[in-house]
Amino acid sequence: MTNLSSEELGEIYAFAIDLGRRAGKMLLDAVELRIDGMGEDLLSEKDNAVDIVTQTDEDVESFVKSEIRRRYPSHVFLGEETYAKGQSRDYLINEEPTWCVDPLDGTVNYTHIFSQFCVSIGFIVNHQPVIGVIYAPFQNQLFSSCTGRGAWLNEKRKLPLIQKPSIPPMPPNAPNKCIFSCEWGKDRRDTPDGNMHRKVESFLNMAAEVGGRDGKGGMVHGVRSLGSATLDLAYVAMGAFDIWWEGGCWEWDVAAGIAILQEAGGLVTTANPPPDPETVQIEDVRLGSRLYLAIRPAGPSGTETGREGQERTVREVWRRVRHLDYSRLGA
Amino acid sequence: MTNLSSEELGEIYAFAIDLGRRAGKMLLDAVELRIDGMGEDLLSEKDNAVDIVTQTDEDVESFVKSEIRRRYPSHVFLGEETYAKGQSRDYLINEEPTWCVDPLDGTVNYTHIFSQFCVSIGFIVNHQPVIGVIYAPFQNQLFSSCTGRGAWLNEKRKLPLIQKPSIPPMPPNAPNKCIFSCEWGKDRRDTPDGNMHRKVESFLNMAAEVGGRDGKGGMVHGVRSLGSATLDLAYVAMGAFDIWWEGGCWEWDVAAGIAILQEAGGLVTTANPPPDPETVQIEDVRLGSRLYLAIRPAGPSGTETGREGQERTVREVWRRVRHLDYSRLGA
Repeated sequence: MTNLSSEELGEIYAFAIDLGRRAGKMLLDAVELRIDGMGEDLLSEKDNAVDIVTQTDEDVESFVKSEIRRRYPSHVFLGEETYAKGQSRDYLINEEPTWCVDPLDGTVNYTHIFSQFCVSIGFIVNHQPVIGVIYAPFQNQLFSSCTGRGAWLNEKRKLPLIQKPSIPPMPPNAPNKCIFSCEWGKDRRDTPDGNMHRKVESFLNMAAEVGGRDGKGGMVHGVRSLGSATLDLAYVAMGAFDIWWEGGCWEWDVAAGIAILQEAGGLVTTANPPPDPETVQIEDVRLGSRLYLAIRPAGPSGTETGREGQERTVREVWRRVRHLDYSRLGA
Repeated sequence: MTNLSSEELGEIYAFAIDLGRRAGKMLLDAVELRIDGMGEDLLSEKDNAVDIVTQTDEDVESFVKSEIRRRYPSHVFLGEETYAKGQSRDYLINEEPTWCVDPLDGTVNYTHIFSQFCVSIGFIVNHQPVIGVIYAPFQNQLFSSCTGRGAWLNEKRKLPLIQKPSIPPMPPNAPNKCIFSCEWGKDRRDTPDGNMHRKVESFLNMAAEVGGRDGKGGMVHGVRSLGSATLDLAYVAMGAFDIWWEGGCWEWDVAAGIAILQEAGGLVTTANPPPDPETVQIEDVRLGSRLYLAIRPAGPSGTETGREGQERTVREVWRRVRHLDYSRLGA
């Protein structure tokens, strides 16, 4: 059991923000090189068209790792690139202070120079994500949080963005009036009842008119797919997205985002409906579960607390989505 | 037939950019008011949850309209809000110099304070969109073009972003390796073979593994849905998206975007596959057709010109998508 003083935590938080900004600048510098016609050799292909890794990705991870090792040699480091090269898909986070880092989330966006890419730095103690830093350099958006110190956009705007006169409650007929964020992901196998078809059936239920889809129609306000799990979570913390539902991510994709969203007052639980969805106690997500359902921060309405509104929304989503099949044996 | 001198056109272009910036600032100011807790009374609901109009929308249109009337009293003005209040769904653009304006595209995003909203100002002469200005104030991105003067991001970066050593050709197996942008839209009727189901079937074909979906699997690199037709077109002009396919937009949603994309070297044609998709001559889109397929600017490869690569991609998309049913009688 590690106990960090408030002062120590504050120092780590400042370090993480600075590190995020520097790592993000590396990502942006490499984009500038490509625009200047000098970056083509940086791209190399991995196993399929949806899985491109760039040299930049590895360079940024090396940089982040060495900076952390230098400043906090006793902390554990877990990065996407180093993890991906290993044999194990085990969940490696324990109670030790652990940095969980994705040097580049939204890789496909990055290779196409679409703005929705970022670096994601999470710091976890006793299994709890306590610090999160997400920096999207092309749009110069820095999301950050530290337990007890709030969640912030660019260190000046508190998240969620709308706080006055109070944080809006969840809509009374949620998911109606909600923006629903979801991703098509990399698993595109055309297997009957496979993950892709289960996802699309779930998207359709959420989108269709109320009364449609055998009563499962949710008539959400909008369906959004950005191609970055990390930024999806950041936008839920912001209040821009109401619901994010996804399977197949890994802990480095979501650690920082979960820290920020929880600190902002959001709820994160599992994507897969439990056997008793209407009555089960709603528990916080397991970081390594690969199955995530996030609900934005919500204030009270006249008839329920913010938490009650969030839990009601969770159950309404569970009623409309299929189970997804993602294990830790690979994507 | 109107002939504008190069000098006149340049003046109109400068006016349009300045107008776009000022209109976008009005949108952003209203967001700031909401964040400060003073904007709740600005929101009023229209006919359904996916169709919210804000007072801001109308205020911005009034502002843009009056500025244009003052400076160019002889020009025709066509705006989303004024049009929507009228009885006619006819296509009203003729050879006269016409301003085609959407004061707020991405209305759902705007109400949720998700960054993907913008003002869109197109200027059309002799049926040709000759000037386009799109300003997304929350992310401070200004896209602009004028026939013969190039297309630009923030007036300093030429579009598409990657020009050196040459604009990338379309991928040899497009839509594989392409980012495919598409929108779920407002028509969520759960009608068998209705627009929503035809769209989703098309999305699935584009996404599925090569060989899947009875040979229609396109294995695109990513599927994106932002909730703004206008910004979709801007990102295609940028090169960030390779393909955008959509039905149901109106001319004010796309006029500026088409101007910018065409000036950047992109191709815009119809979303609906013609009877002879493999051999038909590919024609430029009709602005009022409500059916749009956009392909990013492309350079030559060793075996084909940029235009040939774009046309090959159009035919590959047509092979995978369903006909959509949008008339001019309403959405």
